[in-house]
Amino acid sequence: MIRTIGFDADDTLWHNENLFSVAQEKFRSVLSHYHSSEWIDRKLLETERRNLEHFGYGAKGFALSMLETAIELSEERITGSDVRIIIQAVKEILTEPVQPIEGVEETLLLLSREFQLFLITKGDLFEQETKIARSGLAEYFTSIEIVTEKSPATYRRILEKRGIFPAEFLMVGNSVRSDALPVLDIGGSAVHIPYTLTWEHERVEPPSQVAGFTVLDDIRRLPAHVAELSGRSRP
Amino acid sequence: MIRTIGFDADDTLWHNENLFSVAQEKFRSVLSHYHSSEWIDRKLLETERRNLEHFGYGAKGFALSMLETAIELSEERITGSDVRIIIQAVKEILTEPVQPIEGVEETLLLLSREFQLFLITKGDLFEQETKIARSGLAEYFTSIEIVTEKSPATYRRILEKRGIFPAEFLMVGNSVRSDALPVLDIGGSAVHIPYTLTWEHERVEPPSQVAGFTVLDDIRRLPAHVAELSGRSRP
Repeated sequence: MIRTIGFDADDTLWHNENLFSVAQEKFRSVLSHYHSSEWIDRKLLETERRNLEHFGYGAKGFALSMLETAIELSEERITGSDVRIIIQAVKEILTEPVQPIEGVEETLLLLSREFQLFLITKGDLFEQETKIARSGLAEYFTSIEIVTEKSPATYRRILEKRGIFPAEFLMVGNSVRSDALPVLDIGGSAVHIPYTLTWEHERVEPPSQVAGFTVLDDIRRLPAHVAELSGRSRP
Repeated sequence: MIRTIGFDADDTLWHNENLFSVAQEKFRSVLSHYHSSEWIDRKLLETERRNLEHFGYGAKGFALSMLETAIELSEERITGSDVRIIIQAVKEILTEPVQPIEGVEETLLLLSREFQLFLITKGDLFEQETKIARSGLAEYFTSIEIVTEKSPATYRRILEKRGIFPAEFLMVGNSVRSDALPVLDIGGSAVHIPYTLTWEHERVEPPSQVAGFTVLDDIRRLPAHVAELSGRSRP
């Protein structure tokens, strides 16, 4: 019996990866006379992964990783004007209007009448707080948690703090790695709603035929799915 | 009667501004053939203030503001090698060992026997979490709050959540602006312990002769001060 539904934010409630993707496209053109797109992407991902332990997630760390990669790939020949383009591209990520994904608001409204809704997002505190504020969706959530990493321990701590049993908890998100696997691990349920783009770092094969795990192609299918899980749709 | 003591982290529990200061010194030398130190510092502070609403606090935003200022002040003539020096300087801020200020650990140990201790710090979630972990001081605190801005509303929310009256709360920190004024504003007490360096943005004149506000030159004087506040040192 589900009582609480947790939602991831970026690429689950609102578009995000597309903004990073646009910035990365600009980064690629800056470096296009040095290397192929494939090589640029590959080196950037390497830098991002190496820097995760120092920078954490978010647009500012992404900016610094792009600049570091640009210096490496251009053998320091990157120009001031190129650096400006890269920084500007990241500022656009931080200032673009937050665009909710289709069907999100109506679904939250519907579910908030029957369930406790939590927003559980990882990333930069400042960036996430401003996005939540700008999204206009904060009012649907009884609790908002911004964490640095979504591990089983993170989810356990969030639930324990509020006296919620994992069996009563369903997590909804676009990342199998962050939103589904750790929740299944502690005995909760998970719904994976793929987004059109996934950051390479988050890419994990969805488990097949695992109890408590479901893939939905549209957030608007969530209310029916939860009703089914809770057994209320049975005759 | 004080029951709970809140502590700021950077430059109150451990050295921080000195690391930023070292990075800024490297930034100045990179730009030294373009402008005077005074002008460089002034333009950097302008950029930092302008970027606060997009970047928030922390080393990564500081890096991007330095780079933006470098591009502006060099009229885009900044080189790849200069960019590398600036990014490297910021990485050192993020990786240097966290060095507690003298007397901090013994004071926390002493106070934690009689009071609830909170750590209340503003800034980048990821950077603060890793610093708290690396400091080895987390065990002294019953609650750790990382916030994006220290306003009266922030403190009110933190205290209300735990049923603490402002009159029972004392905040200790190096920033008059962030640690003292908003707490006095909601009816709490504050101790200002100046650090040798203060980021220009945080600089505010300490209030003189305000009830509930005290300046101490050393954290080791805190236990005696709190005892006095609580009336326990009276005959």
